[in-house]
This record gives sequence, C-alpha cells and structure tokens, in this order.
Amino acid sequence: MRFGSDNWAGASDKVMQALVAANADLVPAYGADALTARLERRMSDLFEREVAILLVATGTAANSLATTGFCPPHGAIVAHQSAHLANDECGAPEFFGSNKLITLPGARARIDPAALDALLARPQRGVHHVVPSVLTLTQATELGTVYSAAEVAVLSELAKSKGLTVHMDGARLANAIATLQCSPADITWKAGVDVLSFGATKGGCLIAEAIVMFDPSHAERFGYLRKRSGQLVSKHRALSAQFDAWLDEGHWLDLARHANAMATRLAAGIERSNAARINWLPEANELFVYLGDEVAARMKAAGGQFYSWDADGLATADLPGPGETLYRFVTSFRTTADEVDGFLSELG
Amino acid sequence: MRFGSDNWAGASDKVMQALVAANADLVPAYGADALTARLERRMSDLFEREVAILLVATGTAANSLATTGFCPPHGAIVAHQSAHLANDECGAPEFFGSNKLITLPGARARIDPAALDALLARPQRGVHHVVPSVLTLTQATELGTVYSAAEVAVLSELAKSKGLTVHMDGARLANAIATLQCSPADITWKAGVDVLSFGATKGGCLIAEAIVMFDPSHAERFGYLRKRSGQLVSKHRALSAQFDAWLDEGHWLDLARHANAMATRLAAGIERSNAARINWLPEANELFVYLGDEVAARMKAAGGQFYSWDADGLATADLPGPGETLYRFVTSFRTTADEVDGFLSELG
Amino acid sequence: MRFGSDNWAGASDKVMQALVAANADLVPAYGADALTARLERRMSDLFEREVAILLVATGTAANSLATTGFCPPHGAIVAHQSAHLANDECGAPEFFGSNKLITLPGARARIDPAALDALLARPQRGVHHVVPSVLTLTQATELGTVYSAAEVAVLSELAKSKGLTVHMDGARLANAIATLQCSPADITWKAGVDVLSFGATKGGCLIAEAIVMFDPSHAERFGYLRKRSGQLVSKHRALSAQFDAWLDEGHWLDLARHANAMATRLAAGIERSNAARINWLPEANELFVYLGDEVAARMKAAGGQFYSWDADGLATADLPGPGETLYRFVTSFRTTADEVDGFLSELG
Amino acid sequence: MRFGSDNWAGASDKVMQALVAANADLVPAYGADALTARLERRMSDLFEREVAILLVATGTAANSLATTGFCPPHGAIVAHQSAHLANDECGAPEFFGSNKLITLPGARARIDPAALDALLARPQRGVHHVVPSVLTLTQATELGTVYSAAEVAVLSELAKSKGLTVHMDGARLANAIATLQCSPADITWKAGVDVLSFGATKGGCLIAEAIVMFDPSHAERFGYLRKRSGQLVSKHRALSAQFDAWLDEGHWLDLARHANAMATRLAAGIERSNAARINWLPEANELFVYLGDEVAARMKAAGGQFYSWDADGLATADLPGPGETLYRFVTSFRTTADEVDGFLSELG
Repeated sequence: MRFGSDNWAGASDKVMQALVAANADLVPAYGADALTARLERRMSDLFEREVAILLVATGTAANSLATTGFCPPHGAIVAHQSAHLANDECGAPEFFGSNKLITLPGARARIDPAALDALLARPQRGVHHVVPSVLTLTQATELGTVYSAAEVAVLSELAKSKGLTVHMDGARLANAIATLQCSPADITWKAGVDVLSFGATKGGCLIAEAIVMFDPSHAERFGYLRKRSGQLVSKHRALSAQFDAWLDEGHWLDLARHANAMATRLAAGIERSNAARINWLPEANELFVYLGDEVAARMKAAGGQFYSWDADGLATADLPGPGETLYRFVTSFRTTADEVDGFLSELG
Repeated sequence: MRFGSDNWAGASDKVMQALVAANADLVPAYGADALTARLERRMSDLFEREVAILLVATGTAANSLATTGFCPPHGAIVAHQSAHLANDECGAPEFFGSNKLITLPGARARIDPAALDALLARPQRGVHHVVPSVLTLTQATELGTVYSAAEVAVLSELAKSKGLTVHMDGARLANAIATLQCSPADITWKAGVDVLSFGATKGGCLIAEAIVMFDPSHAERFGYLRKRSGQLVSKHRALSAQFDAWLDEGHWLDLARHANAMATRLAAGIERSNAARINWLPEANELFVYLGDEVAARMKAAGGQFYSWDADGLATADLPGPGETLYRFVTSFRTTADEVDGFLSELG
Repeated sequence: MRFGSDNWAGASDKVMQALVAANADLVPAYGADALTARLERRMSDLFEREVAILLVATGTAANSLATTGFCPPHGAIVAHQSAHLANDECGAPEFFGSNKLITLPGARARIDPAALDALLARPQRGVHHVVPSVLTLTQATELGTVYSAAEVAVLSELAKSKGLTVHMDGARLANAIATLQCSPADITWKAGVDVLSFGATKGGCLIAEAIVMFDPSHAERFGYLRKRSGQLVSKHRALSAQFDAWLDEGHWLDLARHANAMATRLAAGIERSNAARINWLPEANELFVYLGDEVAARMKAAGGQFYSWDADGLATADLPGPGETLYRFVTSFRTTADEVDGFLSELG
Repeated sequence: MRFGSDNWAGASDKVMQALVAANADLVPAYGADALTARLERRMSDLFEREVAILLVATGTAANSLATTGFCPPHGAIVAHQSAHLANDECGAPEFFGSNKLITLPGARARIDPAALDALLARPQRGVHHVVPSVLTLTQATELGTVYSAAEVAVLSELAKSKGLTVHMDGARLANAIATLQCSPADITWKAGVDVLSFGATKGGCLIAEAIVMFDPSHAERFGYLRKRSGQLVSKHRALSAQFDAWLDEGHWLDLARHANAMATRLAAGIERSNAARINWLPEANELFVYLGDEVAARMKAAGGQFYSWDADGLATADLPGPGETLYRFVTSFRTTADEVDGFLSELG
C-alpha cells in the first residue's frame, strides 16, 4: 500500500550486483574509467547516433544544467506550468543560470501547442524582454500522461523555427517508452529533442542521472559546467555501473513495464470501485485518484501511503469536487500485484 | 604502483555490504528515512554535541555550500592559496555564491597566522571592498600535512575576533585525525570550527559527503540551498547507509590509519633510496616526491601511476631542482604493502 | 502628439538648474557630500520617519536590488503578472538574486487579494518549493490605475502575516499620490510597505531613482549590494541634486498633477470621440485607448506617437475587439494642452 | 589642496552646457535618439573603425559587463593584482559573471609579461580548473603609470595566442593618451584590445561611461546584458550628450592634459621639497607621495585632502619606509596651479 513515490524503491538486484562488481579494484576517477566509456558506447547504440553523456547525481541537476546550459543570460526557459523544473526544484534553474522561466498551460501536463505558438509568435520587442531560448518537455509528464512522438515533434518544430533548444526531462522516460513502444531515438532526437535528462534513479538505480547530448560538440563546455556546479562525482564508476546495468538487455524497460502495469492494475481496480474515481488512465507509472475525505482517511489508517496533489493548474473538468481531494499514486519496479490488490480490497 | 588518487579505490567491503543491505524494501525518500536519522544521531555522538548534517554528492558541493552559505553577497572567502576549493573546483565557490576568494600563503599548505592577521587587521574601507567573511582550512592539507588542534584554534580565534565563520574542508579529515590521535570534537568545534565538510568518499565510501553544522540552527536554510543546487539525492538512504557504516565501530579510522601507514611506508622507502627524495614526511595519506625526469619516466614505464604537482605557491626551499619534478603519491585504504614495496623495489 | 513615454521628456527647468548649480566646486564622491545628506533629511521629513536612501541610476536597478535584497536564495518574489519587474526588465530580478518570480492576476494591474491569499495559504511543502518572501506592488500600476491606501494595506497585511517583505515599485509614485491626495507616508509604510523604489526620472529628473528603506538598519548591507552591482555613481551629487530639487516645495507633485491632468484631458476627449474608446479612466498619467486599425494608421500618419500594449493578461472584458488594438498613451510634465487638443482634433 | 579624487570635480562647463541643451524637447528613450546616434558615429571616427558602444552609469558596471560578457562560466579574468576591478569594486565581476579573478604581479601596476606568460603556459588540466579567458589591462594604471602601445601589444599577443579576449579599463584613458600622444586606435585595437571601458566621468563628465566594442557583432547580446543588469538609462540622451560634448574638438584631451600637467607640477614641487618624496613620476593624473607621519598630519591640518594608499602589492623598493606612509594625490581638470602651488608652499 506504499504509493508515495518511485523514489522509495531502492535499486534492482541486477543494478546492485553491477555496482558491487564495479567496486573491485582501483580505477581512474572522474569518468576516465572503462565502465564509463562502455556506457557512452551503449548510449550511442541505444540512441542510434553518437551522443555525449554527462552523469550527475540528481535529476534536478540534470534538468538545471541541461536547460540553463543552452540559455543565454537574457534567455527564458519555457516549461509547462506543472513541470517539475518549474515547481518542485526550489528555483534550481534560476540558480544555475539566473534565467527566467515562462510557463505554459496544456491539458493534463502536456504543453498546448497553441499556447507555445502564441508565445513564440510575439514579436521580439528589444532588450526589455527576455527571449524564449529553451523549451523543456516532461516525458512522462507530471500527471502520468505521455507525449506521442508526433506531439513532441509538433512542439519541437515550433520551438526550432524560432531558434529554441529543445530539452526533454526524462526522469520517467523509461515509463513513457514502455508505453509508447517506440525506440529511444524516435521519442527524442528524431522528434527534435536536442538534449535529454535521462533518469535511471526512479526506474531502478540508486543514484544515476544522465544528460544526453545529441550534439556532442557541447560536451566539453558542459564538462566544466558539471564540475563547477559540484556534480562531477569522483568515484564516477559508481554512477556508470548502475546506468550500464540498468540499460543492459532491456532491463530498464522490463522494470518500467512492470511499474506501468502496476499503475494500470490499480487504475482498473479503482474504476471498478465505488469508493474512488479517476479521470484519466495512467500512461506511465503514476495514477491520479479522486478520494473523498472519509475514504482517504480510512485508507491512510489502513496503512495506505500516498500524497495529495496540488490542484493548481488543472483543467476545470479535472478539479476535485466538494469533499474530494486529488491524490497521486506512484508505482515502481518494486510494487507487487499483491500490494495493489491489497489496497483495492481495502478500498472496497 | 597505483598512487594517482584515493578516489581510485572503491568502497570498503563493510561499506558496500551496508549499501546492499540498505537497498532492500521501500523507504521514504529525500532523507526522511530511519538510516538518515540514525546517522544524524551517530554524528552528534561522534562530535560530542548536537550537530545537523546535510549529505551531498561531492566534496566540491560540500565546500561550496558550506562556505558561500555563510558568506554575504559582498563577503569574501579566505583560503590557503593551495586550497582545493580555490584551485581544483573550477570556480565552484564563485558559482555557488558569486563570492570573491582571497588566498593566503603559508608553509606547506597551512595558512600562516601572520598572513591572516595582516589581512584581517586592514581597516574595512567601506563599500568598495569585499569583507572577509569565511575562513576555510583544509585538514589534511593539499600537501599531506595536518594542522594541530592548537594551530586550528589560533587561526579560528583570529577569524572569529573579526566575525568570520570558520569552515574546515575535511575531505581527508579521517586521515588527519588518525595522525593527530585527537577526537573529532577537538579538531573541529572545540578548536573553533563552525561548519565542516566531512568527506567519506576518499576514505572508503563511493559517494558520501556531509556538511556538518555545529550550530544546527542553520540547517533549515541549508536544506533549501542543498535542494536548489541539485544536491538533494532522492534515494537518500544510499548516502546515509555508506556514511553510517563507515563511521561504525571506528571503521573510518581503521581505513585511514592503513592509508596513512602506506604513505609512511612509501616515504621511509624513498628516504632510503638514492633515486628520489622527499622534503617533508607525510602526515596523512599523501606523499610528495621529487623525481628526476629519467627516474620518473622509468617508473612510469614500469607501471607507476602518479601525477606531477603544480609547484606554484611552494616555498623556495620546496621547489623542485633543475631536471626534477614534484609528484604527488596518494595512498588509500586499498593500497597494499606489496604495492608500496613493489614500487620501492623498482625504484631502487 | 507625442505620447510614447514619460521617459521622452527631459528634466524640469528647476531640476536642471539645481543640477547646474550642484556642478560647481569639488565635493567628495560616492555620496559623502552635503547635498546627499540634505536629501536624506528631506526624505525623512517627507515620509515622516527616519528612512535610509540609496540612489541608483535606473528603476530596474532599484526594483531588482530592493526586492532581491530582501529575498533569501530560496525565496520567491510575488508580483502582478503585468508588473514591469516581471515583464519589462529582461529578467533583472532573476539576475540580481537568482530568485524565482511568482506572478498573480488581478483586474487592471492590481493584485487580486484573493489570489495572494490563495498563494500564501498553501502549506509550505518543504525544500522542494520556493518560499514566497517578497511582495511587490506597482504604484501607479502598469495600466495607469492606482491602489488606494486601504488596498495596499490589505495586501501588505496578507503578506506580512506570512513573513513577506513588502516592496512598492514607485516609478510613478508621484502620479499616484497626486491622484490619491494622500501623504507619502500614508501610501507607503503606514500601509505596510517596507521598501520603496521611488522614481524621480519619469516625473521630471534625468537620472534619479531612490531605494527608500523604512527600516534603516538594512542600509549598510544595501550599500555593498549597490556598489557590487555597479550602481554606486561616483559623482553622486549629480543624482542627489536632481532628486532634492524635484522634491523641493512640492515641485514633484506639481509636475505629476500636470501630467495626470493631461491624461485626464485626453481621456475626456476620447470619450467624446466616436473614433476611439477607452474602458477605464486614467488614475495617473497613462491612458489605454482602443483604436481601430484604420484610425490608428491615420493618427500615426498625422504624427501621433504611441505604442500598442500587449493584451496578454487583460480581463476578457478589456480585450480589444476584432480589428482593434489597445494602445498606451503616456503624458508627462512636458505634455501641453495644445498637444492633447491637437491630437483630439485630428482624431475627430 | 583637494587631491582626494578626480571624482570630486563635477563636469566641465562645455559638458554641462551640452547637457542643458540636450534637455530640451521630447526625444525617444533608451538610446533611440539622435544624440546617441551622433555619438556612435563620433566614436567610430575617433577610433578609426566601426565600433559599437554601450553607455552605462558607472565604471564598475562597464568593467564588469565588458569582462564577464566575454568570459564563459568556467573562465577566469586575469588582472593586475592592483586592478580597480579586482580590489575596489566590491566583487562586482564575481557578481556579474560568477567568474574567478586571477591576479598577476608587475612593477608599478603594469602586468609583468613574464607572469602572464607563465600563467598561460600552464597546460590546461581539464575540468577541475578555470580557464583564463579575459585579460584586463588598466590604462592609466592604478599607480598613475601608463602602458606604452608596445607594452599593450606584447600582453595582448600573449593573451590572444591562447584565445583570451583583451579588455582595457580606461577609466583614465584620456590621461594616458594625453601622455602617450598616440591615437586612441593605437593604444586600443591596434595594440590588440577587443573591448574598452572608456570613462568620461573622471575626465570631465558627471555620469558617462562607455563600453566600446571593436567587434560590433557582440553589441546585440550586450544590449540585453546591459538592460538585465539595470544599466540601461531611460533618458539615455543625458549620457550621450555629456560624452559627445566631452569628445568634441579635443575637449577631452585638453582636460586630461591639464589634469596631467597639474600632477606633473605637483611632482616637480615635491622633488624640490625636503618634506616629502616620490619614487616615480606621474604619467597621468595621479601622484604617489611618501610622507612622514608628522608632515602628513601637518598638511592635513592645513587643509590638504588626500588619502593613504594600501602598500599591499608594491615592490619592495617602493614600500614606505619606517614612519612613512604612501599617499595618492589625484588632480583633475578643475585643479588649479594655485591649488598645487599653495600645497607646495605649505609643504615647504
């Protein structure tokens, strides 16, 4: 009944074994090791083109570096109003780059192309105004939905026609790809993404986040940005080993498919229940459930762990009704069918 | 013959076992877990007073947050001219706090109290000049020496008499304490240190650095600073588990004593050798060796791994002679007597 | 027919004469002069309490320093979505303090108290979220309206009950006070304002902006912030002389009353015209006029100078209709009745 | 007897008349006026090539923007250890760009080419170390000396061979050119300078500083940097009018020659005196005088105004002797021969 966060799970057994194995011996620090080199090759294979990667310790760091690193001082970062980067990272982008964020609306956490178009259609009015310079898309979104490759492409094209760099916050990219059943290339650079925060932590590692640059020519200066921001981990193989094992033989997608299936199982049960309701089906590993206050209290008393969701920015049709609150349920590779079923049985 | 860095060693077996054990189960993220709570209590016990701790992913982050977090915008951070924070962190303090660094001389990487006194004796001349606000001491120093508790106290008292906060960069604090045979309290807050970067990575963890605040009242705002700088690790127990095991039953000091002993063994061998020389004995786990170019080439060809040291800032008497270069040799908990002896035997 | 900006007018004759007079002789630099001291006393008299002032060169600098100077790194600045600071200063607050801005709606550029209440009522959810720390109010607003003292007090009280500092952007404070016929104290600190950007440039000086601190204890650290941001003018009396003359014998209010009267005269004429329309009467020196495209083109051809206004953020009822654009007309102390009447006559 | 600073003088009569004349009428704001356009052409003529200019309110802003604007986040600014930018601007470069400053020695405030060469000869050692990116030269220097065009060229060539941008802090460029009797082009871009802080304030304006870009392609992004840092003066003609008049018909050099002549006159008198001594002749408008404590007290009692100079960084031969202090005497266009002679007569 523990649906608080996919950050509550540790690493998968396979990832932990790789980490233990990588711990042996002395190897050069700061990424000059064979495991990191192997991971770089694996990433290039995975994305079907040469990429450069920078491993960092947190998703916040990945997002902040990847966006502000492409934003001039007078540029702005354009994000959905529900984006993690805009709401849940304590102003990290403003710290890393002193850049302004511009937020856009869009149904269920996906940026509305018309809103982006309207923003970018505004004539640039000189030095008094920041210049939209980076577009960031969250995949899967904060509301458990996903962008199709076509939807990413539409937004990317709008952005690129005005010279913006396109960033994808892929803290849950694995879950999105498991749903979309597309290739990593299709949903990223083939759809116009220039730089990706590729998160492995939520999906089954302990600490492993990558900035993936589809144009490797930026890697050198990002190497300095990473060091200067305190994100260059000295015993770097500790990150590489996890990420490498996670990507090995489709392990990452196996884990994501399981997590997604658990969210779907939970959704199906709730649809059958009279004690709760949902407005949209999960497309990744997050489910948003409307619970009356009494039911919520009862489920918490029974050991249910889940958090309320700030309704700010939801469409009117998605706002909780009177006496209701919207809760987020997150599943992970560790969630079991028994845990889901136990919750549903308790819910009634 | 691998003396490149103590960052080349992985974690100790005990630390790895704790990490694996901590991986089981689902536990709350971001530090709200039992292991983190236990570590906090352990730290307070270790330092013989209530402390607050913030775990971060790198020593650079620990140093930058801990210094700039106590420095007003117009303040300056005072460091030895060889300090890691001043030379080897790519301008991280300038990034984290937009603060100026003022560097001071001092024999073998220890700040000269007279130089600090002279700096602080200068009358504050109004808004045109930055105000020295934080003193940072490196323990053990970048040249493998240590400050005695009395030496720390002298510098701290000078600093505090002018209102500065005193920070200690303890990336190798374990090695210093193993040498000094003092208590952690003696060499930190009892000697005037307000905030400590306590590094466990070099000493036997994979990724585990702590900011230790001897005045816990600053912990809340530092919590925000940590998050905002992308240093709040989501699966936080991964850091706590390592640090906790490392501190358990004096393990950290055992590891440090071994590393120090290997440096001492290497020094003793070099003192007996005619092929190399040293100017000062190691007081921690770093040894600085003068090698003629031919000998250096020969040892590298034989598999020796060690890096040259920038002579900038060395006292005249410590400068390498003609045809000589100064090299840094670093030992770790993983260094074996065989590896040391093999090197010495090859050196001749 | 020149209604582009009140920044198009130079200084009043009285102000220029004072500047010329102040130019004589050698006097100490950086504010250590008698004129600056006199201005400080005059400001304290004007505001009926001891204040500290810092003169700077631009309104952007005044706003950025005054807000970020009271905002911790993890704090947010709360502003109306049309605020100059949020839209027209190229991200200056994000630069000065790396702080996030949170914007709120409200009819005709005045913050809706309910929106502020809702923002501040949200429970603080820990380190992942910035903390609203400074509220900034624009007086007169960007849409030529003013807050009454009671309206300021309502917003200030909400803000202060949550620990926020209250800032007023008074680039056109003179125009607001001329309309409100209140004392400077009534509309600032007596209504809860802690720090004021008091602009004299638009109102009849060349370069003269003041940060007025109602709690002088912050003045010392702001002195450093000013210097460090390149805002401490060396020949400082040049600023003081202007501001001092502008405040002398009610000159500033005379100028503001004239500018306001010209806006009112223009509004009255437009209300009588069939060729244009307004939705709200000017309360300061800015008038917002809806013009059909043909009329606008005709008036520009006839020499009319005025700019379109970005309709973003206007209430639905205030949006321009089809074939219409909203234009901003700004009057100044230099605007003549003839110029207004000439425009109206041409408009028909 | 007022030798405290050239910032104590106001503007020259010609400059003030131009400012008054420019005040008439309504003209567009923010630099879109005819006077600013005229100044731009005049500057291009003066420097014998097309330049772009950005006027700002202070020399600190000019220096900070001009250096950090050419410095990547991980870059360092290289300055003489006595540079104003490094010592007297309260950490402004660190604020504007979060960049590290590296300071170099050199006799009497001129950077020693050997020191620069040694710095730049160091191999770049990867991401742990900042990269020297901008060289800044002060002309005239903080010790009243000047670089010859050949000396500037030597330093510039060293810098450019390693890819650095060369900046000149010309707060007293007029005084240097008056001494060197060279063209502005000769001492700037023809000697390798890429960007210049051209100060008119100290030399006879009230508030007028220019960033002169010898490669105008950077002007657009600097326009944003200027606005974002609160340095775009709204009634911009107020700056242009001063600068334009100051440059008109060699007025600026007439003023500088007078100021320099007064320093030379003072130096000559002191050389004849037994009550004081100098070590080097002034090459601009600053004179450094060694005074015994009794003499200094006597001269101050007699109304002499002058400040002591921080001896830090002086060559051993230039350090004050026992019972002596080094004082800086600054002359300006307003200094009269009578004032100089009066001082000398009093000195005896």
